[in-house]
Amino acid sequence: MTASKRTLSLGAFLMATGHHIAAWRHPDVPADGGLDFQQYKRLAQIAEAACFDALFFADSAAAPDAPIASRMARSDHFEPLTLLSALAAVTERIGLIATVTTSYNEPFHVARKFASLDHLSGGRAGWNLVTSDAAAEALNFNRSEHLGHAERYARAREFHEVVSGLWDSWEDDAFVRDKASGQYYDPAKLHVLDHHGDHFQVRGPLNVARSPQGRPVVVQAGSSETGRELAAQTAEVVFTAQTSLAAARDFYSDLKGRLGKYGRSADALKIMPGVFIVLGDSQSQAQEKFEQFQALVEPAVGVALLSRMLGNFDLSGYPLDGPLPDLPLTDSGQRSRQLLLTELAGKENLSLAQLGRRIAGGRGHYSLIGTPAQVADELQAWFEQGGADGFNVLVPHLPGGLEDVATLLVPELQRRGLFRTEYSGRTLREHLGLARPANRFASI
Amino acid sequence: MTASKRTLSLGAFLMATGHHIAAWRHPDVPADGGLDFQQYKRLAQIAEAACFDALFFADSAAAPDAPIASRMARSDHFEPLTLLSALAAVTERIGLIATVTTSYNEPFHVARKFASLDHLSGGRAGWNLVTSDAAAEALNFNRSEHLGHAERYARAREFHEVVSGLWDSWEDDAFVRDKASGQYYDPAKLHVLDHHGDHFQVRGPLNVARSPQGRPVVVQAGSSETGRELAAQTAEVVFTAQTSLAAARDFYSDLKGRLGKYGRSADALKIMPGVFIVLGDSQSQAQEKFEQFQALVEPAVGVALLSRMLGNFDLSGYPLDGPLPDLPLTDSGQRSRQLLLTELAGKENLSLAQLGRRIAGGRGHYSLIGTPAQVADELQAWFEQGGADGFNVLVPHLPGGLEDVATLLVPELQRRGLFRTEYSGRTLREHLGLARPANRFASI
Repeated sequence: MTASKRTLSLGAFLMATGHHIAAWRHPDVPADGGLDFQQYKRLAQIAEAACFDALFFADSAAAPDAPIASRMARSDHFEPLTLLSALAAVTERIGLIATVTTSYNEPFHVARKFASLDHLSGGRAGWNLVTSDAAAEALNFNRSEHLGHAERYARAREFHEVVSGLWDSWEDDAFVRDKASGQYYDPAKLHVLDHHGDHFQVRGPLNVARSPQGRPVVVQAGSSETGRELAAQTAEVVFTAQTSLAAARDFYSDLKGRLGKYGRSADALKIMPGVFIVLGDSQSQAQEKFEQFQALVEPAVGVALLSRMLGNFDLSGYPLDGPLPDLPLTDSGQRSRQLLLTELAGKENLSLAQLGRRIAGGRGHYSLIGTPAQVADELQAWFEQGGADGFNVLVPHLPGGLEDVATLLVPELQRRGLFRTEYSGRTLREHLGLARPANRFASI
Repeated sequence: MTASKRTLSLGAFLMATGHHIAAWRHPDVPADGGLDFQQYKRLAQIAEAACFDALFFADSAAAPDAPIASRMARSDHFEPLTLLSALAAVTERIGLIATVTTSYNEPFHVARKFASLDHLSGGRAGWNLVTSDAAAEALNFNRSEHLGHAERYARAREFHEVVSGLWDSWEDDAFVRDKASGQYYDPAKLHVLDHHGDHFQVRGPLNVARSPQGRPVVVQAGSSETGRELAAQTAEVVFTAQTSLAAARDFYSDLKGRLGKYGRSADALKIMPGVFIVLGDSQSQAQEKFEQFQALVEPAVGVALLSRMLGNFDLSGYPLDGPLPDLPLTDSGQRSRQLLLTELAGKENLSLAQLGRRIAGGRGHYSLIGTPAQVADELQAWFEQGGADGFNVLVPHLPGGLEDVATLLVPELQRRGLFRTEYSGRTLREHLGLARPANRFASI
């Protein structure tokens, strides 16, 4: 592997007991993993030993409490920023990406917490910027329903503008801390944001010095037209669900093609599709492993997961052995997923219960079930044929699924020269190959 | 020391480079301590080795940026919840108390983050509930001025009601996680808050299981009439500034006397005055140490600190060698501090510059400068004569000042049987002698 060879990035998508909806019921899985810090510490250390670029945490600011929720492991888990801050203290190199919604937060707090995490971790923080489309979240924040799609994105765009502006409150060398003269900072290197917009009035400055990465890495996952535009303008990593190489290539070239109009190079944004991975010594052994989880899926639980993925469309009144009903074309950010699932149900002629079980593992993400070589072949094809810059790895169960990826798949990728064998950088930006941004206010 | 003997509690109030306004200029002090995680890790470990009950972090959601602020070490520091989460991972026993304002936050986020920290730390989280009276904070949160005193407190009271209700969303044994039957939680042990109030509409439930302490410890620091009533109703620890034993006893008996009408025993709330401590082998050596810091105080910096303590009353137009001007009796929460400082200036006949320097160390807290035995005598008197249940210890500089307290004062208190020699409990509640609250919704 030569120094200049392009290598792929890997994120470890961690979710309580694992990505498979029935993982918590498996005998190898600690069912209380969602609130066990020692478990997360082990996971972080496994991923770091395997040189992953980052840990990635999804989030929701609401606990499901419909009757069926009592049969799913989704109602109790750590808040991602507190968890990642704790993990920062017990890791050295791996990036730390947390999801925080722009819909029910204040940009000053968000800018500050990620800047603080970036300092705590020596430059390893990433913010997955999302908008909230779940009614359950709205109800926890003084609203009777969530904002519409357009308004959510307008707010998100302005939110990003404020947060990134606050991150540039201080030039990198603003804090001189000169004991002799008594000058702590250079006032010429302080920039008060004084933002006045449609959604926010924020004066600043931030009460955190500019952070090691300049700005924490901004991650996004929106796939709608509006979401792609926001990503092209502001994102540095995009996490996406693509179910074939052809679709992944379309998405990749579409999104990269949008960067130019914002004055950004194609390299300034990395595209990382989610891949659900189950490994075995043989394909049949891998499949058998997967079936152990599938056998634990109750039909109503599968359908509840489906309902959630369809933007909380209530499916409880429909017969389990009947077809997926016609769905309203909502303005929801889940619309692209609705289309994907409707297509899948039609193509494979699946009943509601079958469709629920079909997505119980990968949740709409591309599934790779096979030997390390087989899985590596697929990842390599996507990576080399214009479908991906890297992958966000989803595993059925934790810690076992991650251990499999770390010990079986990563060495295979390393043998092929596709993945690092040790960290060459210190910061998440360095791992991802993203430039450190200059302070927009600094004179040259 | 018998098992039943009442012992005192100690909190370590940590602030970047130390409590003395000029600490950062001292040769022994790392001037960049406010954003150095390794420094905080050392501090936490020093305090834990000395068996302190808790670390305590003040907070403000704004960076001062007036010209004089460039000569003070106040504009760059960690956000407390991210910092304490990281410290949770590198400590075992010590409590972790962070200040978070009720004025510019959402109760769902606050409930969730502290519950998350409580799980992360095995039951060591504490929330210092404050209201914001700084205009600079308002300007970072879409407001042109901060809320009035009465409205702030009404919001704070309701905020507490929502947060503590969310902490009781789940009964302690709600999560059964029964792999065989597929039941993850018992729906009968889930309680949806469904709060509808003047300031907040919050449905719940919280997406975190009930935490190890049942509820994180609630700390407050208000001294006004309204603040005392809120504390009597809701606080479990009160941090206060008292400048004589007589005043401390008045405050102590007043506050403890208010608990009964809320159905609370006097033991349910611990009162911990702040004490600024400088230690030496002799009184003159301690005084000399203190003078090293005093000599580094620029007059305008002292006056700026004074201005801040007076509720940001602008003193920059007044002559440094003139008297403290008459202050408007504002509705500010700083009012009790205004009275205290006006009294002090009058009694000692101090000019503005002299008053600024006078408070540059303890910032209005009781100052004890002397040998370990002398300081212990004072603490013992306050503790035994009805002035305090413990102390929040402020030191001029970090890490040196904390090391002095840990190695010189704590052993003296231990010799007298006034302080633990090892932790007997695991949680902050256990350290403080506070009962674990029952879930309000649980049937018996």
